[in-house]
Amino acid sequence: LEQVNPDVPSPGIVIPIIHWLGTPQMFWDSDLGKSIETIAYSLYRKPNPELEARADAIIDMYEKLQDEDGYLNSFFQRIKPEWKWTNLRDFHELYCAGHMIEGAVAYYQATGKRKFLDVMCRMADYCVRKFGKGPGQVPGYCGHEEIELALVRLARVTGNQAYMDLAKFFVDERGQAPNFFIEEAVAHNRDPKGVQKNTLEYNQSHLPVREQTKVVGHAVRAMYLYSAMADLATEYNDDSLTAALETLWADLTQKQMYITGGIGPAESNEGFTDYYDLPNDTAYAETCASVGLVFWASRMLGRGPKRVYADTMEQALYNGAITGLSTDGKTFFYDNPLESTGKHHRWTWHACPCCPPNIARLVTSLGSYIYAVADDEIAIHLYAQSEARVVLANGARFTLTQNTDYPWSGAIDIAIEPETAARFAVSLRIPGWARGAKLAVNGQHVDLAVDADGYARLDRTWQKGDRLALDLPLEPRVLRANPRVRQDAGRVAVMRGPLVYCLEATDNGTGLNSILLQRGLGRAETAAIPDLRGAIAIDLPALRENAETWGADLYAEKAANTQTTTVRLVPYHLWDNREPGEMLVWTRQATQ
Amino acid sequence: LEQVNPDVPSPGIVIPIIHWLGTPQMFWDSDLGKSIETIAYSLYRKPNPELEARADAIIDMYEKLQDEDGYLNSFFQRIKPEWKWTNLRDFHELYCAGHMIEGAVAYYQATGKRKFLDVMCRMADYCVRKFGKGPGQVPGYCGHEEIELALVRLARVTGNQAYMDLAKFFVDERGQAPNFFIEEAVAHNRDPKGVQKNTLEYNQSHLPVREQTKVVGHAVRAMYLYSAMADLATEYNDDSLTAALETLWADLTQKQMYITGGIGPAESNEGFTDYYDLPNDTAYAETCASVGLVFWASRMLGRGPKRVYADTMEQALYNGAITGLSTDGKTFFYDNPLESTGKHHRWTWHACPCCPPNIARLVTSLGSYIYAVADDEIAIHLYAQSEARVVLANGARFTLTQNTDYPWSGAIDIAIEPETAARFAVSLRIPGWARGAKLAVNGQHVDLAVDADGYARLDRTWQKGDRLALDLPLEPRVLRANPRVRQDAGRVAVMRGPLVYCLEATDNGTGLNSILLQRGLGRAETAAIPDLRGAIAIDLPALRENAETWGADLYAEKAANTQTTTVRLVPYHLWDNREPGEMLVWTRQATQ
Repeated sequence: LEQVNPDVPSPGIVIPIIHWLGTPQMFWDSDLGKSIETIAYSLYRKPNPELEARADAIIDMYEKLQDEDGYLNSFFQRIKPEWKWTNLRDFHELYCAGHMIEGAVAYYQATGKRKFLDVMCRMADYCVRKFGKGPGQVPGYCGHEEIELALVRLARVTGNQAYMDLAKFFVDERGQAPNFFIEEAVAHNRDPKGVQKNTLEYNQSHLPVREQTKVVGHAVRAMYLYSAMADLATEYNDDSLTAALETLWADLTQKQMYITGGIGPAESNEGFTDYYDLPNDTAYAETCASVGLVFWASRMLGRGPKRVYADTMEQALYNGAITGLSTDGKTFFYDNPLESTGKHHRWTWHACPCCPPNIARLVTSLGSYIYAVADDEIAIHLYAQSEARVVLANGARFTLTQNTDYPWSGAIDIAIEPETAARFAVSLRIPGWARGAKLAVNGQHVDLAVDADGYARLDRTWQKGDRLALDLPLEPRVLRANPRVRQDAGRVAVMRGPLVYCLEATDNGTGLNSILLQRGLGRAETAAIPDLRGAIAIDLPALRENAETWGADLYAEKAANTQTTTVRLVPYHLWDNREPGEMLVWTRQATQ
Repeated sequence: LEQVNPDVPSPGIVIPIIHWLGTPQMFWDSDLGKSIETIAYSLYRKPNPELEARADAIIDMYEKLQDEDGYLNSFFQRIKPEWKWTNLRDFHELYCAGHMIEGAVAYYQATGKRKFLDVMCRMADYCVRKFGKGPGQVPGYCGHEEIELALVRLARVTGNQAYMDLAKFFVDERGQAPNFFIEEAVAHNRDPKGVQKNTLEYNQSHLPVREQTKVVGHAVRAMYLYSAMADLATEYNDDSLTAALETLWADLTQKQMYITGGIGPAESNEGFTDYYDLPNDTAYAETCASVGLVFWASRMLGRGPKRVYADTMEQALYNGAITGLSTDGKTFFYDNPLESTGKHHRWTWHACPCCPPNIARLVTSLGSYIYAVADDEIAIHLYAQSEARVVLANGARFTLTQNTDYPWSGAIDIAIEPETAARFAVSLRIPGWARGAKLAVNGQHVDLAVDADGYARLDRTWQKGDRLALDLPLEPRVLRANPRVRQDAGRVAVMRGPLVYCLEATDNGTGLNSILLQRGLGRAETAAIPDLRGAIAIDLPALRENAETWGADLYAEKAANTQTTTVRLVPYHLWDNREPGEMLVWTRQATQ
């Protein structure tokens, strides 16, 4: 906070300048923005005067720090003013503004206080003047996308179309020729090949966004870009953006996504590599990237319910994102491998601490991902114990309450309590995996008419006391990967409902690759896991190769000595919360 | 050569100083030493006046460069004199001297010219004065072992015991407390934790050598140390060294060695990690490390023939070492993965060019690994077309000729032509894998009495015209790895004789992990491989999963759609010599 507080001396460079000629210290404002956003969601649900006072104090600092013209960035104001706007590609100035705007919007919505919103509107106004193709304006955009989706949020809450248009400008300009980042590098006498990964694909500026067909580069950057594109497709009814997004969505989910919803297998670029290249033990699959995938999937629902997006949103949420957080909430995974020899554990802190506030703001704002409303309809995208108070544009006012301990059980009771009887539709997502789902309305079973988008739509006049009972079967499922994924060859993953399961050494001993699941899985039993608050384990019969009887040879002409056993699988998102040790998602399966 | 030539200006630092505060330029003398050694072996077999003149010119430069007191190192004399002897751990001064000594010994043996030998004796004399525990002496040793084995060679060729004793001093002192490298760092105000890998294990100075039980650290360093220890065990009949070496040998070959004889799985330390950690696609398995393993194995034979060492020497030679060289001799692998997606290819050059001269000097001196003699015995450790002229200490003089195209065929005809009838033993290694080997003496089949050490010992009076016919069966073998090697679970490797085989995309198309070998291997056929000079391929029936019929899903509840096919395996050391593409050693096998 010394960097932000104009009343104390600047701390100077605390984290050294590294190879890309910047320092993670440049992103500190973004972490404060995400933290204020998280505090806002938390205050919305439960008042906490101490926390609110702390946020207010930080906001006061920023207000005081802001330049006359609206410019606000503690690093470039207090530490390196001469670097201001010299390197949009690497220096994250607009990215920081974006996270501050998101924080300001959320804080205003939670508390009704306008101060931070006004501060960030002045910064946004500054950007509206600064960026564009007019005389004296900068025709550029940020190397790390984020400002775009933030400006959409700011436009929605303020009604100021200039912010929306600036978001559209940033998205439309990205990747146009001549490439802005090359021109910028040349103008500042830097090698236009760049120091970061040597490629425009890294920040998705290699092509105009509507011409992009392959998901490339830094995974978080990509997700934030596509999120903004989806928002703008909704706001401008822009089918050309939607078409590009549908292509990119298929590219990601059919060729480049872990079964956990983890994305970006490589540490080297924190991002994407080749199609079907999904190594398990070295998977990077940054927590933030799965959070970003939840953001994107959620925004793909902006033009109406579609199971293909909501299913993946749920998959990434439960398996890619919340895995990042330990059950005690104190430690964080930055990267999320699908196999571990026992050395991978959650951090208490990280030099680039983007993931903790990102997962925190997602978890605290979960409500906004569960429901979506249109003029005369409410869609339930996710199932979770929750209560929503809804006013539709058609005048219907009602409370919708889900009673469930999903995803542990598939029984979901939904109470709809209109103030007065009202007509509107309730669309229930029937997950793609939920074969044999059943629905009852007020105790009467009804035919489950699932539409092409994967939702059961109940359009009726709702009365006080109406009750829906949805039953999603949670039989364990065995999934195989496309044979092109070489790392998963001969292996299967077990899922139950939306949850990916894994083996842990604490339940099964070491040497998890010695375990062979049966073809057809065999008789599965479920059981509550001690110490994991109601979580459900799956116990399966299996074969196991005996390492004890093998002998000392490293290589030998020997057959496998297998014996039957029972193995326990636990939800992947809960791994590394008990005795630390080996973990394995993709498990070998007998071939015949 | 500008660095070496005292008649031209010093080039200064050409390769920048990097994180460990040195530069690969410090090792240039070692590469010249290895090159002169290689030239020597080549001249021994075939005169080449031009090559010899080039070596002589370099030797003249070194003679002129040498200091009055015998000190010789072009980097520290010409570029950084103030760094001389300031950092034994990282600066490779003694390492360079070692390679120069090896070059000098080989050049003297090949050409009879003493100049380089005398130069390096003066440097060795300097080292004898400089290093030791006497007053004013440095009680240290080199961070990269090499000088030790070189001094043994120099002592053997000169008969100067002082060199042998200095080698023993370096080995005995290594890892004694207080640790020399810690003391040295403190004395020069460097962080004693070190900049290189932060550990004394990296250069095997964590414990006195006789107390070391786990093979650790940088693989090439380890192999050179153990090679010197084996030489000294032989020279001093030192059972305490032999005992340590036997423990380390078992540790390496039973827990840390690829089936190719590749060692050191990790790039980060160019060395060893955990037991049974043998990743295939990211295997470092540096060519130089396998060359070093050949050196060590060969020296373990110094106290008599033992199959356990010679089998591994052959395994490392054919699969770990010569794989580094392309069939046209122009390109080099630095690291040797056992699985490739098609992006791994031999280099034409490398920033740290240690492997090309190392593999070159091995290949050109192969004869010294094939045979070993004792007073009244010759042991044949390796089979290869060759002719040896031998004089035993008991007075027997004979020529021994192997006629064979092993390893492609297992038929080895051996002609023994004594000048006059003479009694001595011929010990033939019967490889551990050669079940059903047959031997005939002068056309008469004899019982193959293999002794405990794995050799068939024929002790008789040999006459002119005596012929041995050894037949080693080369049936393809299927090997599995110890179940503790998680990366090889469910997979097998195919070997034929000493050669490890692999699948390549050029023969089998892409998607090699879709291939399932049968249990029991099925009917194997062999065939000559076009364009690979008589090399033998193995064709096997197999199953293959069909990726074409899978569909677009990345993950699905589907059974594998397999079909029968035939796959072709080729010798691993020949991979990446034809159409580049995927490669796979450990292949999936049907489980039931």
